Amino acid sequence: MNESLQSEEALDRAVGERDLRAASELLAGFSVRQVVDVMERAPRHRVAVIFRLLPKDFALEVFERLDPSVQGELFLGLQDSDVADLFGELDPDDRVSLMDELPALVARRLMQRLTPHERNLTAVILGHRLGSVGRRMSPEYVSTHPHLSVADTIDVVRRHVRTAETIYTLPVTDTGKRLVGVVSLRELMEAAPEARISDVMQRVDFARADDDAEDVSRLCVDLGLLALPIVDRETRLLGILTIDDAHRILLEAEDEDTARAGGTEPLRRPYLTTSVVRIARSRVVWLLVLAMSAILTVQVLEIFEATLEQKVVLALFIPLLTGTGGNTGAQAATTITRALAMGDVRTGDVGKVMLREVRVGVMLGLLLGSLGFVLTSLVYDTPTGVVIGTTLLCVCTMAATVGGAMPMVAKKLGVDPAVFSTPFITTFCDATGLLVYFTIAKVVLGI
Amino acid sequence: MNESLQSEEALDRAVGERDLRAASELLAGFSVRQVVDVMERAPRHRVAVIFRLLPKDFALEVFERLDPSVQGELFLGLQDSDVADLFGELDPDDRVSLMDELPALVARRLMQRLTPHERNLTAVILGHRLGSVGRRMSPEYVSTHPHLSVADTIDVVRRHVRTAETIYTLPVTDTGKRLVGVVSLRELMEAAPEARISDVMQRVDFARADDDAEDVSRLCVDLGLLALPIVDRETRLLGILTIDDAHRILLEAEDEDTARAGGTEPLRRPYLTTSVVRIARSRVVWLLVLAMSAILTVQVLEIFEATLEQKVVLALFIPLLTGTGGNTGAQAATTITRALAMGDVRTGDVGKVMLREVRVGVMLGLLLGSLGFVLTSLVYDTPTGVVIGTTLLCVCTMAATVGGAMPMVAKKLGVDPAVFSTPFITTFCDATGLLVYFTIAKVVLGI
Repeated sequence: MNESLQSEEALDRAVGERDLRAASELLAGFSVRQVVDVMERAPRHRVAVIFRLLPKDFALEVFERLDPSVQGELFLGLQDSDVADLFGELDPDDRVSLMDELPALVARRLMQRLTPHERNLTAVILGHRLGSVGRRMSPEYVSTHPHLSVADTIDVVRRHVRTAETIYTLPVTDTGKRLVGVVSLRELMEAAPEARISDVMQRVDFARADDDAEDVSRLCVDLGLLALPIVDRETRLLGILTIDDAHRILLEAEDEDTARAGGTEPLRRPYLTTSVVRIARSRVVWLLVLAMSAILTVQVLEIFEATLEQKVVLALFIPLLTGTGGNTGAQAATTITRALAMGDVRTGDVGKVMLREVRVGVMLGLLLGSLGFVLTSLVYDTPTGVVIGTTLLCVCTMAATVGGAMPMVAKKLGVDPAVFSTPFITTFCDATGLLVYFTIAKVVLGI
Repeated sequence: MNESLQSEEALDRAVGERDLRAASELLAGFSVRQVVDVMERAPRHRVAVIFRLLPKDFALEVFERLDPSVQGELFLGLQDSDVADLFGELDPDDRVSLMDELPALVARRLMQRLTPHERNLTAVILGHRLGSVGRRMSPEYVSTHPHLSVADTIDVVRRHVRTAETIYTLPVTDTGKRLVGVVSLRELMEAAPEARISDVMQRVDFARADDDAEDVSRLCVDLGLLALPIVDRETRLLGILTIDDAHRILLEAEDEDTARAGGTEPLRRPYLTTSVVRIARSRVVWLLVLAMSAILTVQVLEIFEATLEQKVVLALFIPLLTGTGGNTGAQAATTITRALAMGDVRTGDVGKVMLREVRVGVMLGLLLGSLGFVLTSLVYDTPTGVVIGTTLLCVCTMAATVGGAMPMVAKKLGVDPAVFSTPFITTFCDATGLLVYFTIAKVVLGI
């Protein structure tokens, strides 16, 4: 590990000093993965320099593994003929991902230079809407037919072994190209060579091309399938989704969920090669929305300004109380958002979930409330202790319930649950927590 | 979808009314996945009832897919002989995951009832520490040798096709059982039958059994491998990690990261079957730690109690300012924690990251600060506007920098970055934000 870090630093220096000979000698010792790592961490103008130093076959392998955003930028720094070659060598599904990163004009020109066969394969994918699995499937599958024998099918596999995306899962189609089953290479190896495919094939799990890419990917991974057939509305076979594409799609979805839960938009590209302005842009909308909602807290406090003037000590506990409410709410929201994403909980379970969260909230509130009561009574006085203790109990109960319900309501409304989770709930808990706090204070302290 | 929900509800009713005949008729129409779903959402006492209604082969398939925690509970509700049968049928790696959920005595008794072969396979895995990939690998691989021909190897594959975990990736070992390469079934299909394995095998990526399971899984998925060989310190082959086990390991890791980022411990089991006390327990430690740290905010405010008494209006902005600081910090922490997990950023990049985050923070701070200045000046007065504007600028800059640095420092110290992220940074930003706020207020307002 340390050794590879050293050679990466040496490469950085060599490229920086424009010592291209030293750089290409260093690169010869790198694995594909290392080169990808280096390129995804390098400043933009160096990416093309490094890439041009790679031997041709190796360069293609590296290119295929790069993030589409980096691929797109790299294209702008390469010669036209190199670009066309690379573009032609890509798998159709990867080509479409890259096209989404390119200016429309460039993408169209590149499409025209493809062979008719490659252009057709690409067009099949491009015909589906962004976000659908049709847009991410591979049309390069090997399929077989029910009436063929196992031995014949193995021959078919041998013939397509070089171009197919996978040969381990073979969709079985009837004469109308309709999907009727699936057979794995493993089953073919297990079966007698003269057996018919119709006798060894399995009932098939499949997805429609216009299904959501994330849902289909989760199905594929959950079922432990190496590839899932994708069909049209008449169950005619269009392509396959392989497990590694499914994983890539889930990773993107996870990126989005993680980012949203932290109140930002996903960068959709490696951090170190993203410009500062772009990073700021990914955060600013959320920050503004949250700050605007936080004005609510100012307004709530204004209502109680007279109370505050009479007893300034109440102000000291504001961040503690709102913070605890926010944390309790965030905990519940995180747990439920995750459970929803994993399918452990469904929107129909909202009643069950709220019932559980109320009970969890009361438990946590009783514990924190008694602690708060004892500590505050000791340091200040008993009435203040009663106010803090009661507020903590109420705030925890309320925050857990709302935090648990909010992601489910969001999902029911068709909104990404992560959008409504942590930061939103924190702000909501701040405002309502203050309302509860000062109401209790006024009652208990009689002001 | 709706139809399957209806039959799930009908099953619920049938089991509730102890109408076992109706229940087993309904179950006959369910897929493995549906039964798993139902069982992972059912109250504990019903899980065994449903399971006993399943036909034998189907029951095993369902059992293999259940969460280990649910498997463990189910064991307590089944007869001894059924338990021993199920236990014997599991793959060695799944067996070990289940053993971790069982009382030690029960686990030991079950181990004794295994066949010597199965017991040995299980012991190989049990010998590795929790969290290592050795603990999660499968010892049921098919391997070949460099001097064998392609045709011979395909014969070997055929002979082991029933028991092997995968036949698509074959490790190649020398006479000392040392790993020398890997060959895929695809390459075997492509090669001439009389070719030697030594001519078609590839250089191999592998991992050591004591390597971290999560790191190895990410490597396996990143490289798009269907299986990764696992070796001991002398590079002798011990087992393989398959892509679907790698997925499962990454999913668990993601569960943990998501939970920690929301300030809770992961439940490690389906939400609806987890007791309320257990849910509360997963949150209470974090909540207490955060509440204790929040006492710091009370202490900071105590320092400025005199200032507050002179100008109560300052209290109105406390939640807004601490909230905005917390949000900015959480955004930076979320982005960097994710970038670290994905390998986009390394601990050595801390300088680069902080430089970027300072600039992002200043940009966001300038925007929010000017907005805050204008709005507050209009509603209150210019000096208050200056205080709020300047505070927002300082708080945003500080929060982004600290939020970006914190996960990297945590990782360098060997602590899970998610632990130090969102909730911790929020609390930290609360306290320092208040310090900045009142210091600026004292200077600007001259109190």
